Amino acid sequence: MKKYLLHDEWKIIEEGFNPEYNEISESCFSIGNGRFGQRANFEEQYSGKSLQGSYVAGVYYPDKTRVGWWKIGYPEYFAKVLNAPNWIGIDVQVDGEVLDLATAKVLSFRRELDMKRGVLYRHFIVRMLSGKELEVTGTRFCSMANNEVGAIQYEVKPLNFSGLIQFTPYIDADVVNQDANWDEKFWIGIAKAAKRRSAYITAETKKTAFQVCTGMKFSLSKNGEKVKQEAVQGIEEKYIGLSVAVNCEKGDHLVLHKYAGIISSRYYDKEQLMDRCVEVVNEACNTGFKKLLKAHEQVWTDKWKEADIVIEGDVAAQQGIRFNIFQLYQTYTGDDPRLNIGPKGFTGEKYGGSTYWDTEAYCLPFYLGTAGQNVARNLLVYRYRHLPKAIENAEKLGFTGGAALYPMVTMNGEECHNEWEITFEEIHRNGAIAYAIFDYIRYTGDWDYLQEYGLEVLVGIARFWAQRVHWSEPKQQFVMHGVTGPNEYENNVNNNWYTNYIATWCLKYALEAMDFVQSSKPERFGELLGKLNFDEEESKKWKHIIDNMYYPEDQERGIFLQQEGFPDKEIRTVDTLRPEDRPLNQNWSWDRILRSCFIKQADVLQGLYFFEEQFDEATHRRNFEFYEPLTVHESSLSACVHAILASRLGMHDKAYEMYLRTARLDLDDYNNDTEDGLHITSMAGTWMALVEGFGGLRAAADMLAFDPHLPDKWKSYGFHLRWRNHFLHILVGRDGAVLKNNSGQPLRVKLRGNPVEVPANGEVGF
Amino acid sequence: MKKYLLHDEWKIIEEGFNPEYNEISESCFSIGNGRFGQRANFEEQYSGKSLQGSYVAGVYYPDKTRVGWWKIGYPEYFAKVLNAPNWIGIDVQVDGEVLDLATAKVLSFRRELDMKRGVLYRHFIVRMLSGKELEVTGTRFCSMANNEVGAIQYEVKPLNFSGLIQFTPYIDADVVNQDANWDEKFWIGIAKAAKRRSAYITAETKKTAFQVCTGMKFSLSKNGEKVKQEAVQGIEEKYIGLSVAVNCEKGDHLVLHKYAGIISSRYYDKEQLMDRCVEVVNEACNTGFKKLLKAHEQVWTDKWKEADIVIEGDVAAQQGIRFNIFQLYQTYTGDDPRLNIGPKGFTGEKYGGSTYWDTEAYCLPFYLGTAGQNVARNLLVYRYRHLPKAIENAEKLGFTGGAALYPMVTMNGEECHNEWEITFEEIHRNGAIAYAIFDYIRYTGDWDYLQEYGLEVLVGIARFWAQRVHWSEPKQQFVMHGVTGPNEYENNVNNNWYTNYIATWCLKYALEAMDFVQSSKPERFGELLGKLNFDEEESKKWKHIIDNMYYPEDQERGIFLQQEGFPDKEIRTVDTLRPEDRPLNQNWSWDRILRSCFIKQADVLQGLYFFEEQFDEATHRRNFEFYEPLTVHESSLSACVHAILASRLGMHDKAYEMYLRTARLDLDDYNNDTEDGLHITSMAGTWMALVEGFGGLRAAADMLAFDPHLPDKWKSYGFHLRWRNHFLHILVGRDGAVLKNNSGQPLRVKLRGNPVEVPANGEVGF
Repeated sequence: MKKYLLHDEWKIIEEGFNPEYNEISESCFSIGNGRFGQRANFEEQYSGKSLQGSYVAGVYYPDKTRVGWWKIGYPEYFAKVLNAPNWIGIDVQVDGEVLDLATAKVLSFRRELDMKRGVLYRHFIVRMLSGKELEVTGTRFCSMANNEVGAIQYEVKPLNFSGLIQFTPYIDADVVNQDANWDEKFWIGIAKAAKRRSAYITAETKKTAFQVCTGMKFSLSKNGEKVKQEAVQGIEEKYIGLSVAVNCEKGDHLVLHKYAGIISSRYYDKEQLMDRCVEVVNEACNTGFKKLLKAHEQVWTDKWKEADIVIEGDVAAQQGIRFNIFQLYQTYTGDDPRLNIGPKGFTGEKYGGSTYWDTEAYCLPFYLGTAGQNVARNLLVYRYRHLPKAIENAEKLGFTGGAALYPMVTMNGEECHNEWEITFEEIHRNGAIAYAIFDYIRYTGDWDYLQEYGLEVLVGIARFWAQRVHWSEPKQQFVMHGVTGPNEYENNVNNNWYTNYIATWCLKYALEAMDFVQSSKPERFGELLGKLNFDEEESKKWKHIIDNMYYPEDQERGIFLQQEGFPDKEIRTVDTLRPEDRPLNQNWSWDRILRSCFIKQADVLQGLYFFEEQFDEATHRRNFEFYEPLTVHESSLSACVHAILASRLGMHDKAYEMYLRTARLDLDDYNNDTEDGLHITSMAGTWMALVEGFGGLRAAADMLAFDPHLPDKWKSYGFHLRWRNHFLHILVGRDGAVLKNNSGQPLRVKLRGNPVEVPANGEVGF
Repeated sequence: MKKYLLHDEWKIIEEGFNPEYNEISESCFSIGNGRFGQRANFEEQYSGKSLQGSYVAGVYYPDKTRVGWWKIGYPEYFAKVLNAPNWIGIDVQVDGEVLDLATAKVLSFRRELDMKRGVLYRHFIVRMLSGKELEVTGTRFCSMANNEVGAIQYEVKPLNFSGLIQFTPYIDADVVNQDANWDEKFWIGIAKAAKRRSAYITAETKKTAFQVCTGMKFSLSKNGEKVKQEAVQGIEEKYIGLSVAVNCEKGDHLVLHKYAGIISSRYYDKEQLMDRCVEVVNEACNTGFKKLLKAHEQVWTDKWKEADIVIEGDVAAQQGIRFNIFQLYQTYTGDDPRLNIGPKGFTGEKYGGSTYWDTEAYCLPFYLGTAGQNVARNLLVYRYRHLPKAIENAEKLGFTGGAALYPMVTMNGEECHNEWEITFEEIHRNGAIAYAIFDYIRYTGDWDYLQEYGLEVLVGIARFWAQRVHWSEPKQQFVMHGVTGPNEYENNVNNNWYTNYIATWCLKYALEAMDFVQSSKPERFGELLGKLNFDEEESKKWKHIIDNMYYPEDQERGIFLQQEGFPDKEIRTVDTLRPEDRPLNQNWSWDRILRSCFIKQADVLQGLYFFEEQFDEATHRRNFEFYEPLTVHESSLSACVHAILASRLGMHDKAYEMYLRTARLDLDDYNNDTEDGLHITSMAGTWMALVEGFGGLRAAADMLAFDPHLPDKWKSYGFHLRWRNHFLHILVGRDGAVLKNNSGQPLRVKLRGNPVEVPANGEVGF
């Protein structure tokens, strides 16, 4: 855990340079706009520790999978979001000496991420080896108003010398992925062009043949006057730099504005890319930095109006929740159903930037609650589009008859994880895809989704489960062998309770969905039956499984068993671990982790979270009290679920501890891995922990319910919520809560268990 | 399964060219001499399917491990025996047209491996694209008499033309490993020299810095007259070729002799390598092909005198057993305790040529029975030398206090496997290392080995097991979680019966060994106690485990369970599989294989084989009858164990079926993988299947026992055996068996259960 970032309600602040944490800072100060984004790398050269990262949504590379011994069913490739051409670079030389914060003495340094405005800001004063002192101020953003544009304002002031300062703004497509499995480069240069103040490079990804044109235009002024001098062109195969050197006196004020365009073939024909990029860059340049920034800030202002959560009395918590919301909206804006939310968004390479079950299990509620139906629906349609591939995935493993297995990791629907040990057997993911449909319909009331898309997905998933179980003679029940549950510190276990439970639930829900479509849209239902080749026989088989599934339990303890045989382990609680053993995955051998009782992330408890209403409170409590002390929360997806369950059980201290852990996971680097990038998908879990945990939000039977609690340390908190046609605001303070209904229709809602009607544009205290 | 090789008692024969099976033939016709060896690649160029392979004992490369996600305890590298510089190459051109069996029309072709003489022979007639017809005869061997020398006689006859025939014998050190994890080349050129008729290249392996000097000298004659013309030198960075072109008339007889020296830095200082190579090559050349060959043949004659097994009435079986014995002695001769037996010997790259538990479990009995005490002892000392590394291996996994975990795959004692899924958790291997000590002492009576080397190894291994088990509260017994047994179609199971059993046995045997050393060498014992830091407390702990270990059983079926929960699987027998499903590992997904009940290789039955006398026959039978029908024998190490158990149970047909499967595994390509190389270590299993299976050999209580059976199809079989100071021969015919004692001392032996004394140099029928 690290605590070097300052607490502030709206800003992330690094005061004083921490080169040893630079990669962490690069992650935390990342900016993006849903279409492209980047780590907070410096504009000028930096020879210290750094992970260079710039990413363009949906532009990926199918890197050859790295396994010791490929076996049937293993994926052929591991898709990764590519490190894209660098558009931020501005090399600076002072009388031929390179400006580099790793070699210069840093006299002062401040880096800020202003979340209210969506701006990355940096100010520093350095003394170079020559003794020359320089003051630099950088301001950068990826425009939310025009998501093809990025802009930088880079100001330099010589403090104690006169001399020649040279700027080389550049575009560099000769970039690598640090995590390339085979140390290959993934980009091929296709075309380039350079003019007086502008440069454009079109590069193409190997294998996938995506093209991205990255362009820039810059202007340079000294003390407010434009520098008109010609630039010297430095052109390499996949690089163009334009150098301008200016004679300066001590105290002069140099300002470089760099405008960039990032245009990808996902949105344009390849032939148009460069023309479009020139257009975009020229337009940005003509508009100018100030105006561009203003438009960008306006989008954030609007977003915050809908999505902000205000916490009074706890700056760390306030900063944490805003950071999470901010990063989520930088990553995914929901306007393109071909896109999804990578676990690291635009902030790092790890996990390849692909789609995981995180989207369905964690991100969906956030977008449902803050962005409305269409964004959430796009996330569902994304999976519908991948159904044929999911069927192929299942076929590769030996399943037949339209059984669908959604991938653990994917870009285009094909499974593309990079390892066997953890991901291969995590078939529970299939359950989350089905659950998301249920969750979406429960929240939005959009039952129509079933006949349009949902039912086909549900049937494919149900078919997978019906084939994946088998009959156990000794038990005289159906069992499921060889799985990994959400707890990735186990592998190839038999009868993981969560997986068994969600499998049966999927079968039930698919049958219910069928009944619904049959009665509401009989014609469409007939059409679907034919398309799916579904008959009575199959539904009988499903019912037989539903009625005869085995669920491992410990009768004596009154708990569900994470997997069969779990109590045979040496049971010890996390508090008996030595601090130097944590995190386990960085200190213990895999052999030891697998055998231990320690749980990486909610597993049985994930099931209790999803299916809360199916278990009574005593059951919740017994399971929570058994599993929570065994859980190390070394997955970012764990603490939020525990926070919600603890809230429900009135264990407010535990809930608060878990909340802080998820809210500040990256800012405080809890798991010692923020340097790889941020845990974007788990940030949605933070929102859930607050809204569903402290706020006690539940959506059930077409009615919302709230049962809020105010953490002791806080004065109040308030959050917005979209619910069908309503815009709500809930404020929870020391003296009670207030629900505002900011819409033209009254709202029926359950407050602390009591049904209440909140008038249109009115409020109710409770 | 393929049946294209002809049956013959002493030879492996390919009649007619089978280019589609060429890689299989290259494996089957491999030759070697314990120090170096090679696949049966052609001397002349071949552009068809081929795996080029030439290997030098103990010269390996630590290739970076290939895993998707490295975890603590994974090995850093995967050691592999390197494809070594090619010394066999002789390019042939006819009037500028390259001789290449892939492009020429092959009019006749015969390839023979003469196992009696240790010679690879090839004869073919081809019509080249130009219409020219050529007859070629190649004879090649790796000298067993001088293990630094290889020699080739290459004869060419123009059949229907006159023209210019050019020979380019060469040395090529610019070779690659087909299985290189990262497509790197592993050799660096260090020095080279070329003269009129000779060439030398010293190359060094990257990282490990082994050096090998490979040299050649050749002579060429036409119709018995030496060709004196100068050679044209073609020299590249890691290649030297010497070209001589000869004008020929139709019917001329050209003979090229190529003598090679392979000198490695494992036996000489690096500075001496080239000098030594020149010396060796010159000497070979001066000796001449005929004399060299004669000396080589004499070694084989002597070997066969001691190790041959004669089967009358079944040519396929006869060929099979000789093939196995031949390949074993080509691979390992036992004179260097730094060497061991790679699963593929010198016949392929797969498994990296490293040491596996195969050596202890399968090869040791063969070398004990045929080569005498010293060779077997060297195999044991090999592991003693690795004890410090085995302790390090255990430490890397979190074990302490001198616990030793021998590696699954190794070159120098470090674990260096390439994957997690199968090998990582196969800790049962540790048991086999201890068992080999027991087996060796039981057979040789060399109890002294314990105090000298054995005890330290046994204690290290016992310490590992004592830490690897843990106490199960529900069972009130010790359990062992997270292992893979010998059956590699399971992974990460709990309480594998074989592993639990051998673990406890190791603890017991270590305690017994201690008692023995204590009473026989009290002083040495005291010394060892101090060195090992062993005390009463520790032995108490071991006894507690021995007395309270859990062994999974199915009471109803009366069998031991391969692992806890096994009966929960869907149990079906192998005969219900469709032919197109076999072998499973080439047709089923890993997900499906893991969940299935099908067994790759003897697991519970391996334990019954090792510890036969600890279980009654009924127990053997029940377990065999349960597990045999579930076993697919897709490991080469399976059928031999089943053959021995079936013999014991009087299931002679099954025993014979299993015997054929192991004896002709590679010749008939049972598992569709002979192209990768031969299954060298499992060949020792064939010997065991015959001698321990059909022959009923047992070594117990300082006395041998035989209980032979003659398979129905055979007229007789006879095998030699070394037993302490005795040289025995057992002949089993239709009318009974005869045991000859070819030594100057009488022998007490148990024949079909009856103790008998066989007089010195006498024989007994039974």
